[in-house]
Amino acid sequence: MLKVAVLGAGHGGHAMAGHLALKGFSVRVFNRFEEELIHLRERGGVTLEGAIEGFGGLELASTDAAEVIPWADVIMVVVPAFAHRWMAEACAPHIRDGQVVVLNPGRTGGALEFRNVLRERGVEAEVLVAEAQTLVYACRISGPARVRIAGIKRRVPLAALPASNTPEVLEKVGALYPQFVPAANVLETGLSNIGAVFHPATVLLNANRIEAGEEFEFYRGMTPAAARLLEAVDAERLAVARSFGLELDSAADWLLRVYEGVRGETLYERIQSNEAYQGIKAPKSLEVRYVLEDVPTGLVPFASLGELASVPTPTCRALVDIFCALLGRDFWGEGRTAEKLGLAGMSADEVVKFVNA
Amino acid sequence: MLKVAVLGAGHGGHAMAGHLALKGFSVRVFNRFEEELIHLRERGGVTLEGAIEGFGGLELASTDAAEVIPWADVIMVVVPAFAHRWMAEACAPHIRDGQVVVLNPGRTGGALEFRNVLRERGVEAEVLVAEAQTLVYACRISGPARVRIAGIKRRVPLAALPASNTPEVLEKVGALYPQFVPAANVLETGLSNIGAVFHPATVLLNANRIEAGEEFEFYRGMTPAAARLLEAVDAERLAVARSFGLELDSAADWLLRVYEGVRGETLYERIQSNEAYQGIKAPKSLEVRYVLEDVPTGLVPFASLGELASVPTPTCRALVDIFCALLGRDFWGEGRTAEKLGLAGMSADEVVKFVNA
Repeated sequence: MLKVAVLGAGHGGHAMAGHLALKGFSVRVFNRFEEELIHLRERGGVTLEGAIEGFGGLELASTDAAEVIPWADVIMVVVPAFAHRWMAEACAPHIRDGQVVVLNPGRTGGALEFRNVLRERGVEAEVLVAEAQTLVYACRISGPARVRIAGIKRRVPLAALPASNTPEVLEKVGALYPQFVPAANVLETGLSNIGAVFHPATVLLNANRIEAGEEFEFYRGMTPAAARLLEAVDAERLAVARSFGLELDSAADWLLRVYEGVRGETLYERIQSNEAYQGIKAPKSLEVRYVLEDVPTGLVPFASLGELASVPTPTCRALVDIFCALLGRDFWGEGRTAEKLGLAGMSADEVVKFVNA
Repeated sequence: MLKVAVLGAGHGGHAMAGHLALKGFSVRVFNRFEEELIHLRERGGVTLEGAIEGFGGLELASTDAAEVIPWADVIMVVVPAFAHRWMAEACAPHIRDGQVVVLNPGRTGGALEFRNVLRERGVEAEVLVAEAQTLVYACRISGPARVRIAGIKRRVPLAALPASNTPEVLEKVGALYPQFVPAANVLETGLSNIGAVFHPATVLLNANRIEAGEEFEFYRGMTPAAARLLEAVDAERLAVARSFGLELDSAADWLLRVYEGVRGETLYERIQSNEAYQGIKAPKSLEVRYVLEDVPTGLVPFASLGELASVPTPTCRALVDIFCALLGRDFWGEGRTAEKLGLAGMSADEVVKFVNA
């Protein structure tokens, strides 16, 4: 039976560790902070409720990578994308030939950054690095060592780096998740990052009342101009993808495909008519994943890949610059530039070869 | 007695035309649209109330520039800055030697753009073009041909283009407004455009509820991150000014100087403590002067002058780019770039010489 290391003990980590253990796989959890592991250790596993019911017992829950990484056949990384770099550094001393790493999900450039960190750290082991386009679960921690599974996706595109390894990765992790289907390459999974289109711009247009802690529904106040801004970001994302030979779904078409009952022709109408967006509360701070994850691991790589491919991305860049000023942070320095992804100096064609071959 | 043409029949035009007529000057009003002139013609002038009380009779209120421009000694332009170009084009066929044009105010680059339009139109008349840093009045139209003057500024910096003409302009218009005092040059008046620092960024951070038509106080919801964004814009404005040899007041210091009872060290604290900002209602549309004027005649010239002087202005540029996307407009094309100001190809030193000599 496959030995699975689940890296991360947040909502997704709880769901994945519990579910895979319940399915009968051997599971160890690694997490950066002790705090999230206490209840898992006390209870010896995760109780699942909702779409999946049961208890999944864990072999170990540890903050010591040496106890988890070398032991595993498959390493499932389930942390916010801004923590991928830290996880790669934690793995580097322990990773070994034949292991498979899957980022759940990679956001934009996750596998590229992860592998680039391993290389920077001098890792010579033959490791397969891959990224899923999204997390398999819609889930929330619902109590100590307990997670509520609201839904399980039926189909999750996955790409290895390079894509020539995707079949081998799917063969190894298909036992865990039959939902995984091959994507063209990590540019396809990475540039399908719709969250980076929707979240930062919508936060920005509501920044004042978000920071003031007002309660409101995040998407229901969507206005025509706001939708135009999202469309401008989305058009840049699609143009960048096109420069790498990828024709991706627009955000508007993605809404139509993913949600039931979505109507209308424009992005504005489709967001307005999406009942799944009802009740989604706005964050009460600007320092949330909608910004801290989607800016550095979404908009920054959109812009940086665009620059590499000579595709203008003024709106993505503008959003990054404004969030730098708003939060007093250097998202260009923190974020996934072509350099961080190991792509510095490459042409668009060279990038395509690099991710495919 | 000086013959004064007041160009524009909005709030400021009403106040200025009425007040100057009340002071005994001969006043004719020119306006682009008939509509704003109807009541002025019916009543034969403007009734002033508030800080000034009385009736100022007008010689004429016309949409025909030929009836107003050639007749005047002094041409006072009192329109939103985005209309300066139109006004310059309307004046071009009629303007004559010895006339003085004052933009009230110029925003950023008003006099430069106005004079550049006259040159483009082949005007050879020797005309003095100047700009005030702000409108003398705080005022609102309060009824047909009636305006309420809430306050009159005690001191309004003014600069001619070039600055060597400032004394001559002050000599001519000092009779109208003893408040006018000399500024170093039009870069000083233009780069003291605090509205462009405060307005677009604050609109952006509230864009969603503004477009949704919610009622709220524009400045009272100011948050620390919002103030950081304003400070980033302001720091870029000050850096651009410095590259032209100008040490200008920061927006935070400007608040302290202009308003009574402002407290605190930071821009955030000073905005929060400014009682004059209480009750200022947010606009209910994104298509308002806070955007349509302050982006193309504030942020665009900040950025374009910065580029000319090799001063980075990422935050100004970002705001312009986002408003382009939000409103589906090309503010870079509409706005006051160095080219529109007649400064294309100049170095910072050459610009300083150009505006001074």
